[in-house]
Amino acid sequence: LAMRNRGFFEGRKVLALNLVSSPGSGKTALLERTINELGAQIAIGVIEGDQETDNDAQRIKATGAKVVQINTGAGCHLEADIVARAINALDPTNNSIVFIENVGNLVCPALFDLGEQAKVAILSTTEGEDKPLKYPHMFRAAQVLLINKIDLLPYLKFDINKCIANALAINPSLKVMAVSAQEGTGMQLWYDWLKANILAPARG
Amino acid sequence: LAMRNRGFFEGRKVLALNLVSSPGSGKTALLERTINELGAQIAIGVIEGDQETDNDAQRIKATGAKVVQINTGAGCHLEADIVARAINALDPTNNSIVFIENVGNLVCPALFDLGEQAKVAILSTTEGEDKPLKYPHMFRAAQVLLINKIDLLPYLKFDINKCIANALAINPSLKVMAVSAQEGTGMQLWYDWLKANILAPARG
Repeated sequence: LAMRNRGFFEGRKVLALNLVSSPGSGKTALLERTINELGAQIAIGVIEGDQETDNDAQRIKATGAKVVQINTGAGCHLEADIVARAINALDPTNNSIVFIENVGNLVCPALFDLGEQAKVAILSTTEGEDKPLKYPHMFRAAQVLLINKIDLLPYLKFDINKCIANALAINPSLKVMAVSAQEGTGMQLWYDWLKANILAPARG
Repeated sequence: LAMRNRGFFEGRKVLALNLVSSPGSGKTALLERTINELGAQIAIGVIEGDQETDNDAQRIKATGAKVVQINTGAGCHLEADIVARAINALDPTNNSIVFIENVGNLVCPALFDLGEQAKVAILSTTEGEDKPLKYPHMFRAAQVLLINKIDLLPYLKFDINKCIANALAINPSLKVMAVSAQEGTGMQLWYDWLKANILAPARG
């Protein structure tokens, strides 16, 4: 089923990204700013995964982007079949980006392919620089790591260079960017990465 | 097997607490301070759960407390059988406290009974006040909620009263305490709770 999703995305030339992180790392804030600052240039759709509530979907809806909420109940991660139904409901336009915001969980979503082109891990500075070593599966599965909440660095004991070194020790090909989704710092690097990775336009 | 662990703890009059939270909420820092400030009065043992590394066990060992590390590999939570083996290795003294630091995961550990007397959830102020609503299973399963990192409140958009209201909406009997494990604020409330809940001395 993940392959079917992948085929669908390829068919529509949609860049699908699976956003994975602990709860509260700032995934939704990152999406809000990304849509606000990039949405005029590139069509963006969002699939929101949460155990309960549609809070995040409401936040995304307020940006004007198309959004579909999935509630997993007791489930700890999204799976390809439920994402397939959400894709049909979202009906993304050709050449768009679809962000799949996974359930906040730095462990389980690492193991599940949803048909995305890449997993993007978000780690907040408040979580500590040792997390790539302690939860290596996620950092191995990801192609991009956004270190978020760098605006809080002055108030934390967090060594960002050590964090980056730890992440690269686990996954040397990881593309690491330091950002503040709240204040906007570093976000241009992320937008540049997105623009470099959107798929060539579909015909017709 | 959880019942066997529970029986063992009751037999030795050990207060066993299952510490559950997202990665980076400060569970280990909380244990370090608790052992440093309470360890002279009450014997404390720790079972450390992590996917990889023994970083946390090393930190606990430095406090002088007895500690046993469990690495779960790809596993996302501790289960009763592996904890049973750790209990045997830890061999806790009568009338002690055993803290079981679960894998950092606000989702899966909610569903697994390890034989503990109570689950203690830790939520850091950096994670956002909506988390009890979005991950209700954990907040329903817990008897105690420690809201940690209150030293960061001046730098965050985090409404602690809303967070407490959200937690109590999910679980009205939850005992909520606001603390800073790093600076020590509010920790006396936690120590008072521990002292009120240690088991009556075992005979002999």
